[in-house]
Amino acid sequence: MTTSLRNDRLLRVLRRQPVDVTPVWLMRQAGRYLPEYRAARARAGNFMRLCQTPELACEVTLQPLARFPLDAAILFSDILTVPDAMGLGLSFSEGEGPRFARPVRSIADIERLPVPDPEVELRYVMDAVRLIRRELNGQVPLIGFAGSPWTLATYMVEGASSKDFAQVKGLLYDQPGALHRLLEVATQAVIAYLNAQMAAGAQALMVFDTWGGILTPPAYQEFSLAYLARIVAELTRETHDERTPVILFTKGGGAWLEAIAATGCEAVGVDWTVDLGDARRRIGNRAAIQGNLDPAVLYAAPDRIRQQVAQALADFGPGPGHVFNLGHGIQPGVDPEHALALVEAVHELSKPYHSGVER
Amino acid sequence: MTTSLRNDRLLRVLRRQPVDVTPVWLMRQAGRYLPEYRAARARAGNFMRLCQTPELACEVTLQPLARFPLDAAILFSDILTVPDAMGLGLSFSEGEGPRFARPVRSIADIERLPVPDPEVELRYVMDAVRLIRRELNGQVPLIGFAGSPWTLATYMVEGASSKDFAQVKGLLYDQPGALHRLLEVATQAVIAYLNAQMAAGAQALMVFDTWGGILTPPAYQEFSLAYLARIVAELTRETHDERTPVILFTKGGGAWLEAIAATGCEAVGVDWTVDLGDARRRIGNRAAIQGNLDPAVLYAAPDRIRQQVAQALADFGPGPGHVFNLGHGIQPGVDPEHALALVEAVHELSKPYHSGVER
Repeated sequence: MTTSLRNDRLLRVLRRQPVDVTPVWLMRQAGRYLPEYRAARARAGNFMRLCQTPELACEVTLQPLARFPLDAAILFSDILTVPDAMGLGLSFSEGEGPRFARPVRSIADIERLPVPDPEVELRYVMDAVRLIRRELNGQVPLIGFAGSPWTLATYMVEGASSKDFAQVKGLLYDQPGALHRLLEVATQAVIAYLNAQMAAGAQALMVFDTWGGILTPPAYQEFSLAYLARIVAELTRETHDERTPVILFTKGGGAWLEAIAATGCEAVGVDWTVDLGDARRRIGNRAAIQGNLDPAVLYAAPDRIRQQVAQALADFGPGPGHVFNLGHGIQPGVDPEHALALVEAVHELSKPYHSGVER
Repeated sequence: MTTSLRNDRLLRVLRRQPVDVTPVWLMRQAGRYLPEYRAARARAGNFMRLCQTPELACEVTLQPLARFPLDAAILFSDILTVPDAMGLGLSFSEGEGPRFARPVRSIADIERLPVPDPEVELRYVMDAVRLIRRELNGQVPLIGFAGSPWTLATYMVEGASSKDFAQVKGLLYDQPGALHRLLEVATQAVIAYLNAQMAAGAQALMVFDTWGGILTPPAYQEFSLAYLARIVAELTRETHDERTPVILFTKGGGAWLEAIAATGCEAVGVDWTVDLGDARRRIGNRAAIQGNLDPAVLYAAPDRIRQQVAQALADFGPGPGHVFNLGHGIQPGVDPEHALALVEAVHELSKPYHSGVER
């Protein structure tokens, strides 16, 4: 399947094979900074309907590829579709973020949680994956994704975005056994969901551990990383000709890169608080690295963006193993021309790092 | 002055001298989790008037000491009184946090910023310090504080709390020279402010770099740490019999502890994402360490709190050099009895770590 790709840079880097230039994609590349995205969302009526309508999800997935020479598409969806499919009742209000009508508030709630069948409750996602693959027609690989069990648990227990995570951390410190039960169900759901995405056509997978960085080192190990490791180990990744690569990204997880790489994932996502050269030295040959420009760099003028791209490429150094990306999602106020400047700078300035012995 | 203290554990640890038990205080120990604080705030009418009325600021500073056997008092105030004194017009709205009526939006705004005279524009703070020292009457030392120049700059430029720091990071990446001018004025203001607090009676100082952790490693060095180092070096710290110690705390700065210690500060504050044993190995004898229990531990039952305290003390290990604290401010929903359990557990469980050769 991947052999028919016209641009396989991403998959080559994830397998630590040589490439001509550093591949680049942007977290949340299909998003509010694009006027055509805002128009599609307006047509959908709300964010959930945009996710749940395969034709619209496909349309917005492809929007940034029409503007920028990106090396990957990422499924347009949301990490919270999984708990929604578990019956928690997800909605998004303008400016306020996600909200669950029925958050998890007791052990009885946890024990009632089902593992959704991805081809039933999340059929709309699988239909979107199939449609996007057809429309992409081998242009670039399609990345599927899910939230980490810990990150899903924070929303499931808090019921919404949170500043201090009082409920879920209360559970962690007071009733760790109950939290583990919740994480077990979430892990099974994520594995089934990602397996189904691969079967539907996803050619690489990313797990977003948005909130792993709010944990203490032992709590991260016990309540987030252990479940990430299970996902990496237990996914059925032989769906395509070659093993489907997995990228793990714990935002704020800079202290734990070695442990993340040791899960056996193909790439470790890093945010901008980490130096790429340090990250590479620490991870060594165990995994590729994805990241890590500060998304706020995109507020600066194109020549400043170019300087920052040059610095990041120099920090990583020569040879393959780097997927260029931001350290977090692109922000809504960014000028699309600035995103273009970034993508072009990566391709142009990375050429010298991919010549010579490393090929 | 310090020789008349009845409890000098904090100052002894900051000088790396032996103590009988590990000293403990809690960031935001005078705060909304205490019903008597909420009553005082209601009497004041609003948060700013609570800060600006020395008698009330003194009253709430002393409130937690009446409940718990804490080893330090910390001035009740806010880091944003300094930019308020620069003319930015600070107010606090219920549930929304701070807001400046006149945020810094141009280079002209930056060039107009004055360095306030602490005994004029911030006289109410100095009067509070003098009153608290008198009322404390040597019970425990009084910690004065300020926000870091970078952290002040984030609020001064954004005009309020921010999620993505678009304005101030836009300035950082696009007009670094203008940001440096702002940081220069803020640094002079912080130095004058902390010097005045020492002259008024503050016996230790803490600088809160709440937002240093959102920066890339080189940006942290250039835009936050460099100014923290100047503060440590340029303060007039010989006001009392012995040099007044300074604690530097960059939240999210776990990757940079060695560099923070190298400023010459007496203690490095650490948040809960860092292991205390690792922090101690990395910092060595260069500075004491303050921290770092996850504030969310206080949502758990007292026996769980005790276990977490025991673990933190074991992580740090035997001997002096540790000021027990949370890794961030105490949260409003915490039961005061749980704070008591923490303080008592620190004193009781730390005894074995302070016997033997280290004395």
